[in-house]
Amino acid sequence: MGSPSVSIQVRGCYAMAGTTLLLTDLYLPISEDLTVVERLFDEELRSDFGFVNELCDGVRSYRGKMLRPALTLLTARAIGKLTDAHRTLAAVVEMVHMATLVHDDVLDEADERRGQPPPNAIAGNVAAVLLGDYLISHAFHLCSSLQSQHASRRIGATTNIVCQGELLQSQHRGNADLPEHIYLDIVGRKTGVLTAVACELGAHQAGADRTVVEAMRSYGMSAGIAFQIIDDVLDIVGDRGSVGKTLGLDLLMGKATLPTIHCLRNASDTTAAALRKVVGRAASVDGERLRAWLGETDSINYAVSCAKKHVADAIHNLGLLPHSDARASLTALAEFIVNRQF
Amino acid sequence: MGSPSVSIQVRGCYAMAGTTLLLTDLYLPISEDLTVVERLFDEELRSDFGFVNELCDGVRSYRGKMLRPALTLLTARAIGKLTDAHRTLAAVVEMVHMATLVHDDVLDEADERRGQPPPNAIAGNVAAVLLGDYLISHAFHLCSSLQSQHASRRIGATTNIVCQGELLQSQHRGNADLPEHIYLDIVGRKTGVLTAVACELGAHQAGADRTVVEAMRSYGMSAGIAFQIIDDVLDIVGDRGSVGKTLGLDLLMGKATLPTIHCLRNASDTTAAALRKVVGRAASVDGERLRAWLGETDSINYAVSCAKKHVADAIHNLGLLPHSDARASLTALAEFIVNRQF
Repeated sequence: MGSPSVSIQVRGCYAMAGTTLLLTDLYLPISEDLTVVERLFDEELRSDFGFVNELCDGVRSYRGKMLRPALTLLTARAIGKLTDAHRTLAAVVEMVHMATLVHDDVLDEADERRGQPPPNAIAGNVAAVLLGDYLISHAFHLCSSLQSQHASRRIGATTNIVCQGELLQSQHRGNADLPEHIYLDIVGRKTGVLTAVACELGAHQAGADRTVVEAMRSYGMSAGIAFQIIDDVLDIVGDRGSVGKTLGLDLLMGKATLPTIHCLRNASDTTAAALRKVVGRAASVDGERLRAWLGETDSINYAVSCAKKHVADAIHNLGLLPHSDARASLTALAEFIVNRQF
Repeated sequence: MGSPSVSIQVRGCYAMAGTTLLLTDLYLPISEDLTVVERLFDEELRSDFGFVNELCDGVRSYRGKMLRPALTLLTARAIGKLTDAHRTLAAVVEMVHMATLVHDDVLDEADERRGQPPPNAIAGNVAAVLLGDYLISHAFHLCSSLQSQHASRRIGATTNIVCQGELLQSQHRGNADLPEHIYLDIVGRKTGVLTAVACELGAHQAGADRTVVEAMRSYGMSAGIAFQIIDDVLDIVGDRGSVGKTLGLDLLMGKATLPTIHCLRNASDTTAAALRKVVGRAASVDGERLRAWLGETDSINYAVSCAKKHVADAIHNLGLLPHSDARASLTALAEFIVNRQF
């Protein structure tokens, strides 16, 4: 997992007061549980075939912030008893997330992510398609090991929505007229619902009542949407070394994200026309020029402030929980989302 | 579903006594249930987004023999009471099968299957990857609607093995030294386990005892292996119009199948060397020449007789069941496998 630091600035585009904070500090209330989750994750994927294990090793190094399992575990800890079922659920949500990353790479033809060559670069798209399938199959298999069918139903309903979000996004590739509300709908489906279910299941499994389960689901949804908005911002203004993946991929793939949508709406005719061509994949642009266009309309700040609103919504939902280290971590995690540089 | 006919000969390579028989005749004991299965299948996939429904319509026309759902339903009918749970399970196994077909097409870059342009030709590999994910997600979601977790566990365990089979197959692409036992292992994992679980769950859900459940699983496993062997034979000697997909794809993709494995083992040095190059994707060959090579070693007949042995094994397992129309259909279905031309 490493020790990523929560930084104060992302490329100077926005600034927050604060000291450097380690993600591992936020995970302190669940650090031992996270180790168990990693073990469960690895055990579930272990194969009799060496080459399958090698492919899965690639996924392991691919693993990032463990945000989704941390959300499940912290929610459980903040509400009540953290059980084995929580650790299993945490491994399941991380496995679903990994599957989406691996298949996203096929879709994006990305040649780098997190500084590691992705599985599709190792052995072609064939391996990446199959590895993603292997991960999603094992996620459902692991989930079905739980005593109750409840989580299987909720995870299945969630992945249905994630797939619709991905399909919707692919439907809008190259669409320079993508309205903001559809962008946000895609983000909610693609990213929001998985962080939402991570928190919802953490709460449900801890025996929370319906109001608290719903509040935690809302926390996860808002946090997830904010996370994705910032991910899209970092794709434009991030530091390649910190973000650990190729920058500018979204535009290259014809994906309009919040900064470009805002810029297209507010820029001069000349800038808007040039940017439209780039989103429509009829022209390319270098990072410096793109940032100049977005600077004209202050579009990065617009996107960041939109993410901040979602973070505030997320944190508001935590009001129902008693004060605890775990709740403090959930608050700090939501704040981390808009202050990270990776 | 159409009315495919069970024919007497496949390209003259082998002949069986028999009259023309319609697959729909074999499905008579379950024809109304199959209609329900198709409805459940369509309902589960229905989306609020028109373009998603259009993609799924593509899958509907893609649907073939409905073999796997028929196996679940006939097994249930042959053993005891056929319930709503069976119809749901039948839709689940068909959906898993469709997901593997859609992703297989991405892997094979096939441009035709069943005479219909596949989803990846409609809208690129992106749509096919996502559509396959959508199908597998909905399969697990539909499965989780059942009261017991049992089927989710068995389906999850099955798709784990299917993925390993696909990975193993991709690992051996271009391998002209693929031993027969590894080919059969791949076939068992890739195809056998899904037909096996279709029968196993049909029996289990009908309340069969462990011996009968195991026998039905063996029936499904042997029938599935035979089915795949014949699929691979038809890829070489089938009639393009009847098979409804591009022929010769396996060799084009560097997949050694039973006829080529047998030929490589028994052919003259000259023929073997030429065939090795084709499997290794260092050369191509037209269908006529390939069939001449395989004719030298009688390799098509070898593969068909291997499939027939598996069919005999399959039918042997039916001995535990009481006589009924459904059991007669299970017997005839197994026989159909080696006598089909599509």
